[in-house]
Amino acid sequence: MKPTTVEERVVVPAREGRAVTVTAGQRVRVVDLEGGQVGDLFAFAAGDPAEHLSASHTRSRTSRLFPAVGEPFLTDRRRPILTLVSDTSPGWHDMLIAACDPARYAALGVRGAHASCAENLHRSLAGLGLTSGVTPQPVNVFMRIPVQESGELRWLPAVSRAGDAITFEAVMDCVVVLSACPQDLVGINGNGPSPLAIDVLSG
Amino acid sequence: MKPTTVEERVVVPAREGRAVTVTAGQRVRVVDLEGGQVGDLFAFAAGDPAEHLSASHTRSRTSRLFPAVGEPFLTDRRRPILTLVSDTSPGWHDMLIAACDPARYAALGVRGAHASCAENLHRSLAGLGLTSGVTPQPVNVFMRIPVQESGELRWLPAVSRAGDAITFEAVMDCVVVLSACPQDLVGINGNGPSPLAIDVLSG
Repeated sequence: MKPTTVEERVVVPAREGRAVTVTAGQRVRVVDLEGGQVGDLFAFAAGDPAEHLSASHTRSRTSRLFPAVGEPFLTDRRRPILTLVSDTSPGWHDMLIAACDPARYAALGVRGAHASCAENLHRSLAGLGLTSGVTPQPVNVFMRIPVQESGELRWLPAVSRAGDAITFEAVMDCVVVLSACPQDLVGINGNGPSPLAIDVLSG
Repeated sequence: MKPTTVEERVVVPAREGRAVTVTAGQRVRVVDLEGGQVGDLFAFAAGDPAEHLSASHTRSRTSRLFPAVGEPFLTDRRRPILTLVSDTSPGWHDMLIAACDPARYAALGVRGAHASCAENLHRSLAGLGLTSGVTPQPVNVFMRIPVQESGELRWLPAVSRAGDAITFEAVMDCVVVLSACPQDLVGINGNGPSPLAIDVLSG
């Protein structure tokens, strides 16, 4: 087994977002630092951020609600961008639910400002000098949305433990953005919003 | 009960797409003319086609894989655009799978041209002088993609019968595009691609 080198650790503070740039073959490990925290993850082609990881194109390829270990995530142009390479968490991740945004919090009754994964995404991209005209449907790591046979979805607290991690390998050069979901009105984040970490791994 | 008037019938030939413009309060009825045919349906705000029906925002609102009768479809700005008002089919519809496109057919081994729902969408919009920078995830009427508890999806032939119909009410002025899915390599269209109809209803 090859030795793994942590090239970079980026802590994503609770309610915030961060971006990392990775090259094909590098791995991105998302760590739940305190447990029970959902992360909204987005990926964009480095050369053209108009191309992005797409949940619906990924499902067309894998015929699963979420890829299994070893399976790819595809872009909206059906090119593999990430592969799921390992997962030490209980295995709950979601690819059905849109990123939270100001309209979501307004509908939940929030008056005034509230951090959101959509704003975290665009702010993180702007930090790299990038813009995207869309907010793609994210990969919601550690988010527990079981689907009943009737088609009903339930919104349950994340059960990832402190230190649990899910790791992706970049298939192409890409920008990966992670938002530590600030949702505190729907109980998906076990004990309220907490930080995550992004480790960029090589070797 | 109010009398229903068919204001306009647009036949969507097999493998093709058509667009209709509807005003808030009008209804759009999609009819499977011969049975066993999937339709990829898209909806855009009339005033700004950058705003479109979004599967992931709809699921966030309804907590279901597909809305029940009486429930709304939301745009990417979380505004209701259509409401599901009636369904005479066996009730199978999909909101998980991306529209087929040239990359999908290339991956299935097609050499040369093959009609696709993505191209039908953009061609239909162009016919109204409109463009969209994205191909939103469609509402796949009559498409039978059961989800197992394990998260696995199955691709089964549509079981809609000749004359079965699903009807939506426009909540805002919008453009509705329907593509009679040309998929003939994966067996989702019972007896191969066949036509659909769009009825615009008032009253």
